[in-house]
Amino acid sequence: MSKYADLCAYGRKGATLGSIGALLGWDQETYMPRGGGEARAEQMALLAGMMHERKTAKEFGDLISACEGESLSDEQAACVREFRRDYDKATKLPQSLVEELARTGSKAQDVWKDARKANDFAMFQPWLEKMVDLSRQKADCYGFGEGGEVYDALLDEYEPNATAREVEAVFTPLGEKLSALVKELTENGTAPDDAPTTVHAPEDRQHALGMHVLKAIGFDLNTGRLDVTTHPFCSGFGPGDTRLTTRYDEKFFPGALYGTMHEAGHGMYEQGLPKSKTHEGPAGDAIATFGTPLADSISLGIHESQSRMWENMVGRSRAFWSWIYKEACDQFAELGKFSEDEVYRAVNIVRPSFIRVEADEGTYNLHVMLRFGIERAMISGDLSVADLPGAWNERFKQMLGLDVPDHANGCLQDVHWSFGLFGYFPTYTLGNLYAAQLWKTINGQLPGLEDDFAKGDFGRLLAWLNENVHTHGRRYGAGELCEKVTGATLSAEPLLEYLGGKLRPVYGL
Amino acid sequence: MSKYADLCAYGRKGATLGSIGALLGWDQETYMPRGGGEARAEQMALLAGMMHERKTAKEFGDLISACEGESLSDEQAACVREFRRDYDKATKLPQSLVEELARTGSKAQDVWKDARKANDFAMFQPWLEKMVDLSRQKADCYGFGEGGEVYDALLDEYEPNATAREVEAVFTPLGEKLSALVKELTENGTAPDDAPTTVHAPEDRQHALGMHVLKAIGFDLNTGRLDVTTHPFCSGFGPGDTRLTTRYDEKFFPGALYGTMHEAGHGMYEQGLPKSKTHEGPAGDAIATFGTPLADSISLGIHESQSRMWENMVGRSRAFWSWIYKEACDQFAELGKFSEDEVYRAVNIVRPSFIRVEADEGTYNLHVMLRFGIERAMISGDLSVADLPGAWNERFKQMLGLDVPDHANGCLQDVHWSFGLFGYFPTYTLGNLYAAQLWKTINGQLPGLEDDFAKGDFGRLLAWLNENVHTHGRRYGAGELCEKVTGATLSAEPLLEYLGGKLRPVYGL
Repeated sequence: MSKYADLCAYGRKGATLGSIGALLGWDQETYMPRGGGEARAEQMALLAGMMHERKTAKEFGDLISACEGESLSDEQAACVREFRRDYDKATKLPQSLVEELARTGSKAQDVWKDARKANDFAMFQPWLEKMVDLSRQKADCYGFGEGGEVYDALLDEYEPNATAREVEAVFTPLGEKLSALVKELTENGTAPDDAPTTVHAPEDRQHALGMHVLKAIGFDLNTGRLDVTTHPFCSGFGPGDTRLTTRYDEKFFPGALYGTMHEAGHGMYEQGLPKSKTHEGPAGDAIATFGTPLADSISLGIHESQSRMWENMVGRSRAFWSWIYKEACDQFAELGKFSEDEVYRAVNIVRPSFIRVEADEGTYNLHVMLRFGIERAMISGDLSVADLPGAWNERFKQMLGLDVPDHANGCLQDVHWSFGLFGYFPTYTLGNLYAAQLWKTINGQLPGLEDDFAKGDFGRLLAWLNENVHTHGRRYGAGELCEKVTGATLSAEPLLEYLGGKLRPVYGL
Repeated sequence: MSKYADLCAYGRKGATLGSIGALLGWDQETYMPRGGGEARAEQMALLAGMMHERKTAKEFGDLISACEGESLSDEQAACVREFRRDYDKATKLPQSLVEELARTGSKAQDVWKDARKANDFAMFQPWLEKMVDLSRQKADCYGFGEGGEVYDALLDEYEPNATAREVEAVFTPLGEKLSALVKELTENGTAPDDAPTTVHAPEDRQHALGMHVLKAIGFDLNTGRLDVTTHPFCSGFGPGDTRLTTRYDEKFFPGALYGTMHEAGHGMYEQGLPKSKTHEGPAGDAIATFGTPLADSISLGIHESQSRMWENMVGRSRAFWSWIYKEACDQFAELGKFSEDEVYRAVNIVRPSFIRVEADEGTYNLHVMLRFGIERAMISGDLSVADLPGAWNERFKQMLGLDVPDHANGCLQDVHWSFGLFGYFPTYTLGNLYAAQLWKTINGQLPGLEDDFAKGDFGRLLAWLNENVHTHGRRYGAGELCEKVTGATLSAEPLLEYLGGKLRPVYGL
């Protein structure tokens, strides 16, 4: 066997351990009895320890080094390059810092829960200070590129090779124009009636509709399933096993419908990755791809582009409602009181609000950009943690036009920072940007796509995504893939065009 | 830390890995999508390999040896004794034989499936010969006690320290008297009408009834749950997590009701083991008991005694029906056409039949004893595999009075032998024997127990089992525990008394 084959086999074993951990996590959220929590934590800790050992083992580093000296194809070289990236990341942090981040983050998360409940920022402040400080230490260990900043090192964990400056260059025009668009819609337009979204929708009927949509859009239920959890998620366990979850609110069916389509977008990316395939090794042998970066997702931004595309570009399109309207009316009797067009407009209402996770397509990115600006300033030291609430409320007013009534509806609403997720938020908006830029390309290459949707046919779209995005795994970086596929670097224009093009008519403008 | 504490910690890590494996197995039967099978096999193989390594590691042996030289309490000494037993068992088999047993067993199981379908014994014969031969090799590696026989070494895997001769000494009188009892009932008695068992019973109503019973008998749903699988089972994952499964037949509710109570009996044993407790170490320190033999079940026989007691002694008692009758009628409307007594009699029908897993309480042990005699003779060489069908049919006629119509209803019905489970069958009847002997003692010590049941109160029974059986883990062997608790070695009398005492009146005798 070649060293390359050895390296891939090493990765495969680690990925198999990881897939076991994914099952533990999924089960914890779905079916685990309440009393099983303590033992589950033991199981998770044992697995995490074994995985960390493998990821940082000298054996792993030696295999990578050996392969770097071999003559490899482009594909193989990309695979080794990404293994190297993972190994360097994993070995740069001292064990003591990893443990302190985990320990402090766990306590800080508990405090955050209480602080949010009590609407008490002062309670959370010392813990957030600790987490900012530890995250800076982490960033120092990772390091960052020339001309960059500390924040880049953190962003790089979730969006490899992205920099704050690049992100800013796209976010700034996006933020300005989005604020203006929201203002235009809400001040000059005619807001749709939201009554169609609040019809009575029994849980089992919502589940039936969700399953109907999953089948039609191409989420493979032979290698996947849908369950119910408090916080919806998608978990791609490995070859042949991808699980989605959703939650049902009988008074607001779009929550589950679009939540399911969102997770299915993640899920179809996982199913499209070449986890069950082989690729050619240096000796011409067929090597299992699972467990190598070639079967792994590129970045959180690209992952999110898939979920947002299916949720919004597809699920909130006029053509989608031409198809699903009848089925939805069959499931929710009261929906028939409204026309197809009324339902379509209702699921596209834009309304500035305080909570990010409840925000609509028009305002969502404003919430994210606000967080990007603030966390970047906290990490650089330009904004002290003590000044967070003031900064938050001021920027919120400026971007969304609302006065934040309290911290629970303001800077205490998200869990992320409490356990050290700095650099994570921007990937949400990067996802929307990538989705829109891909969408523009797709519509150029696949004319008449909306006619397909109106007939309930989503096959051409999924095939395109499989071929152009999913199948490459991490062979290309996110920016590289974007350029390769769309012919341009990431920009704000496609998203602005898409949103304006859809929302202005919805608002009669 | 003492070596004893180290040894227990070593065991705990292995048990945690085992509990992860239990989740993989449970998920495979309950919720895993069909396409996930291949990846699941990889995960299982990886875990199995890691567990085998731990069970046979020199480090483990050295820890045990070190503890054997320490001054220990009775409890600690029992713990070390059982660790030694496990280690010796695990290290006595060469890796090559373990692998050949697994590989051949897996193929033999596939062939068995086809052979049973085709009713073709000749197809299965060469594979059964291989499995008998490999099992003999395994027995040779294990060895057996003085004056014993090869079969003992196999039996010992499932019922530690039991011997074929001891089993025979109880089975022989049991078999004779049971055959006579069945003959007496069917020839002289009045068979109850089975109509009450075939009323229409919707799946969700059966589930509701099952959950009602689980709560009442004391299966803790805070640390357990109930799901649906093709083949019902109970899996005790570890502290705080014990899962039961059942299956529903809308035309035969006793299948799920008694299946659920059976698995709950296993489950309450698992929940009663001191998995979440600590015990005192040699240095007076509190040592987690999970992962040591003190938190493990004694034997398959004792495990089965718990399931059969709840299923039969409790669930098929007259008092149980005094309590559950009203609830059952509320769930299954048609059941109200029959009296409480008619339902009670219907769930206690005795009717010789061909398939063990469908057999009633009166004939079940005859099926098991038949297998015990045959597998013992195959292992000793007294019966050649080629002669199995003839021997089966002859003994079946003799013990159950029926002519076996074909191999699928005869010697090809069970999966066990195909993957080398020789010595396993007797534990089913040992379970019934232990259950009856415990039952006699319990009724002597807890007068008025049936009055409790009639009120839906099962607390005294469960508390007794917790205190006298569950809490000891493997501190005592099965025979030792039986003697300690019931004051006598295992005998056929209590089971015969119990069955005769119940079934004769049911049959108007």
